[in-house]
Amino acid sequence: MTDIDHVARRAAEAHREFARTAPRVRARALTAIADALAADDRLVPTAMDETGLSEARLTGELKRTTFQLKEFADTVLDGGYLDVRIDSPVADYPIGPRPDVRRYLAPVGPVLNFAASNFPLAFSVLGGDTAAALAAGCSVVVKAHPGHPALSDLTAELARAALDEAGISRDTLQLVHGQDEAVELLKHPLIRAASFTGSVRAGRVLANIAAGRPDPIPFFGELGSVNPVVVTASALADRGDELITGYVGSVSGSAGQLCTKPGFLFVPDGEQLDESLRSAAAEVTEHRLLNPQITDGYRQRRQTILDSGVRLVSEGSVRVDESGNGWVTPTLVAVSLEELIAKADLLRDEAFGPLSIVVEYPDGTDLAATLDDLFQGNLTATVQLGPDDAADPVVAELVHHLSERVGRVLFAGWPTGVSVTPAMQHGGPWPATTNDSGTSVGSAAISRFLRPVAYQSAPQQLLPPPLRDDNPWGVPQQRH
Amino acid sequence: MTDIDHVARRAAEAHREFARTAPRVRARALTAIADALAADDRLVPTAMDETGLSEARLTGELKRTTFQLKEFADTVLDGGYLDVRIDSPVADYPIGPRPDVRRYLAPVGPVLNFAASNFPLAFSVLGGDTAAALAAGCSVVVKAHPGHPALSDLTAELARAALDEAGISRDTLQLVHGQDEAVELLKHPLIRAASFTGSVRAGRVLANIAAGRPDPIPFFGELGSVNPVVVTASALADRGDELITGYVGSVSGSAGQLCTKPGFLFVPDGEQLDESLRSAAAEVTEHRLLNPQITDGYRQRRQTILDSGVRLVSEGSVRVDESGNGWVTPTLVAVSLEELIAKADLLRDEAFGPLSIVVEYPDGTDLAATLDDLFQGNLTATVQLGPDDAADPVVAELVHHLSERVGRVLFAGWPTGVSVTPAMQHGGPWPATTNDSGTSVGSAAISRFLRPVAYQSAPQQLLPPPLRDDNPWGVPQQRH
Repeated sequence: MTDIDHVARRAAEAHREFARTAPRVRARALTAIADALAADDRLVPTAMDETGLSEARLTGELKRTTFQLKEFADTVLDGGYLDVRIDSPVADYPIGPRPDVRRYLAPVGPVLNFAASNFPLAFSVLGGDTAAALAAGCSVVVKAHPGHPALSDLTAELARAALDEAGISRDTLQLVHGQDEAVELLKHPLIRAASFTGSVRAGRVLANIAAGRPDPIPFFGELGSVNPVVVTASALADRGDELITGYVGSVSGSAGQLCTKPGFLFVPDGEQLDESLRSAAAEVTEHRLLNPQITDGYRQRRQTILDSGVRLVSEGSVRVDESGNGWVTPTLVAVSLEELIAKADLLRDEAFGPLSIVVEYPDGTDLAATLDDLFQGNLTATVQLGPDDAADPVVAELVHHLSERVGRVLFAGWPTGVSVTPAMQHGGPWPATTNDSGTSVGSAAISRFLRPVAYQSAPQQLLPPPLRDDNPWGVPQQRH
Repeated sequence: MTDIDHVARRAAEAHREFARTAPRVRARALTAIADALAADDRLVPTAMDETGLSEARLTGELKRTTFQLKEFADTVLDGGYLDVRIDSPVADYPIGPRPDVRRYLAPVGPVLNFAASNFPLAFSVLGGDTAAALAAGCSVVVKAHPGHPALSDLTAELARAALDEAGISRDTLQLVHGQDEAVELLKHPLIRAASFTGSVRAGRVLANIAAGRPDPIPFFGELGSVNPVVVTASALADRGDELITGYVGSVSGSAGQLCTKPGFLFVPDGEQLDESLRSAAAEVTEHRLLNPQITDGYRQRRQTILDSGVRLVSEGSVRVDESGNGWVTPTLVAVSLEELIAKADLLRDEAFGPLSIVVEYPDGTDLAATLDDLFQGNLTATVQLGPDDAADPVVAELVHHLSERVGRVLFAGWPTGVSVTPAMQHGGPWPATTNDSGTSVGSAAISRFLRPVAYQSAPQQLLPPPLRDDNPWGVPQQRH
């Protein structure tokens, strides 16, 4: 049994130093970790063994992981994320003399990060949440996902050695195994924020623990999303084949184990798409699910949907091997909009795996109101438009309604394959995330691990460097 | 009994329009409200009657209220708060082709604001939280504070008429009375965020309701703070008289009913300050407390402290009139640091009223560690330094520790009289606020009522105006 109090104390001690590192030191640490991961040839084979994901997918994921560490190094060097604001004194300010006040965003404190199963590199030990918290200047304790323990140990070991070589305490990143240990940490007074990617059920339990502490802390959970896609009649007429192929590819990539997988495709009724959907699905080769637990969950959810009376478009398969891992091909079913509304309680939750529901809507349907009623918050919504649809006020209203319920609205391409950029948004109203003020992908993800601190009438030498007149770190300073 | 579902629905309907208003329209609405409040001669007398606050204080508070509405109008016109980020497409991006993604901060949805008792104008119906939420583009429902119901009705009536004249739905601002009504609203699915200023006990209950909803929503509560002040030996030698006068003024202003009132003054032991403290306190004239409930709370808290064995410096008084309202002069007590530590559970919580505790610390005390152990989060900490103290590494370490536990660190002046500026921070770790990622004073307060939304590969005409290439609102756009 890990001594959790000791882990928390080491995290706090490492934090106090790390929080004060200069941008170039912190950026160098992030880059050193990225380089150490990129140079290691054991990560991909270990991940393949523990997760069943393909070499191509994992090689790409490792690249994504090192890329995002380096993106955050750039974010740190840029310094704009600090949101430095400097008020100069104003003697005759309308509400009384205005003092010298300087405000910036400081690291929130040690962060607990629950690793995800479906991205054993990019959302795990050195994944986006850890990278964002380190970039913010926070020490991090990662709770390893039980789906890939050896990979977690190896990743942490490489990162801790890289930190050490960069002159940063190894305890800036710690790894723990075990749910009980993680819950004890989540309740520990020295842990100041937590992040999580996983199921709605587990996420809700953890969010409640964070909110129920004597001193509640922010909990950034990414839970469930069904990512509806709406296709207009004109879009289908314009590029029907491309849309069918793209949809099936997005549903079945990584065996459908992606939080942005399109769970629902809304198409005009009477379009007779079954045959093309079936052919596209038939092209997809069998793929292993991540682990027996996900296999069980997927089998149950799939059976519930099949038993609900939906029309089978492409049955797909789930073959369970001797280790309990499922091997799957995509399952596609279809329902009328009326039927979906009638069976919404049964059908609208996420199926984690390569299953998606095609919804046939009648001409003239008020999709804005319909989708408002059907779905809670989502990470994404996609609207596939034909050549003249963008000028249609009904479409504009649909887009506005969707923008109130999701974090990202797409108009081409598919929601899976989330890029890592300054403008990316990966988050949305409950249950997509527990807190939709942030993102867990892209450089804006750093903001979740910061809190504002102001200094009033401070002597220059007692100000943190970003707030000083001589601006030793060269960060952007907004003067007012 | 108000029909709460009807209130929520009207708020949602008004929100959908208001959220899309152009900056100049929204700024004009805020300015129209400010002008309507400034022109009305009933507000100050009504507030005097309901709260016992003085005409001078309320006249100043009305100015502060209209000033902050106009400050937010400027924030809206500036547009920087939208944090617009535009990724241009990059075909050979290292992790695969990068699409056109555009992200900004959109209004979160209808906001429920619980008005405070101690600022019947500046933290009430049209106070900072309401102004910030309106500036963000959110409709607002205010729960009136029972301490000033007539003033609340009058303020809401003036603001709703001003909105109407500015061509904005009156329902963009609604007022409800009653705790049960407010709790029902806090649980209503159409309410998307809430703000509150009040006691730790009430704030905790409401925060738990917000976190316990089927879909949890952000709850920005400002609860309790004791705002410790540390005075060095050198500061006392340099300007002892000025510090004593300033301290007593900050403790007794508005009868001590301010969230940033200094609850503790740490001074070197052996300085014999009782006489000067007593004389300064004797200068303060009797002042009415806000209402009988606050009177009862203050009397009990004061008695607990007096009974704890502290040394009485200036007894002060609480005289209760026939309406149950207390009339008070400041109570100052002193303890050794050792005694404070021994009786921390009894002494460290906030006393809402003009009472403060002078703590005498021995030379060589590790104040950084001591304050870490004694206090939870606070809105402010103040360090009064002498001429050479700023160069002392022990002072630097103390300041760093304080900065981890508070939202604002002051080095001159006093924490009361919070200015309204771009750099102001009014928030801090629990229990100062329920969520220390925001501020409830200053133009940065707008951020609490926003959430990020991204558009990927969107046709220009379906983008919200701030994200368009032609930038019709002229907002700052960061291009990447």
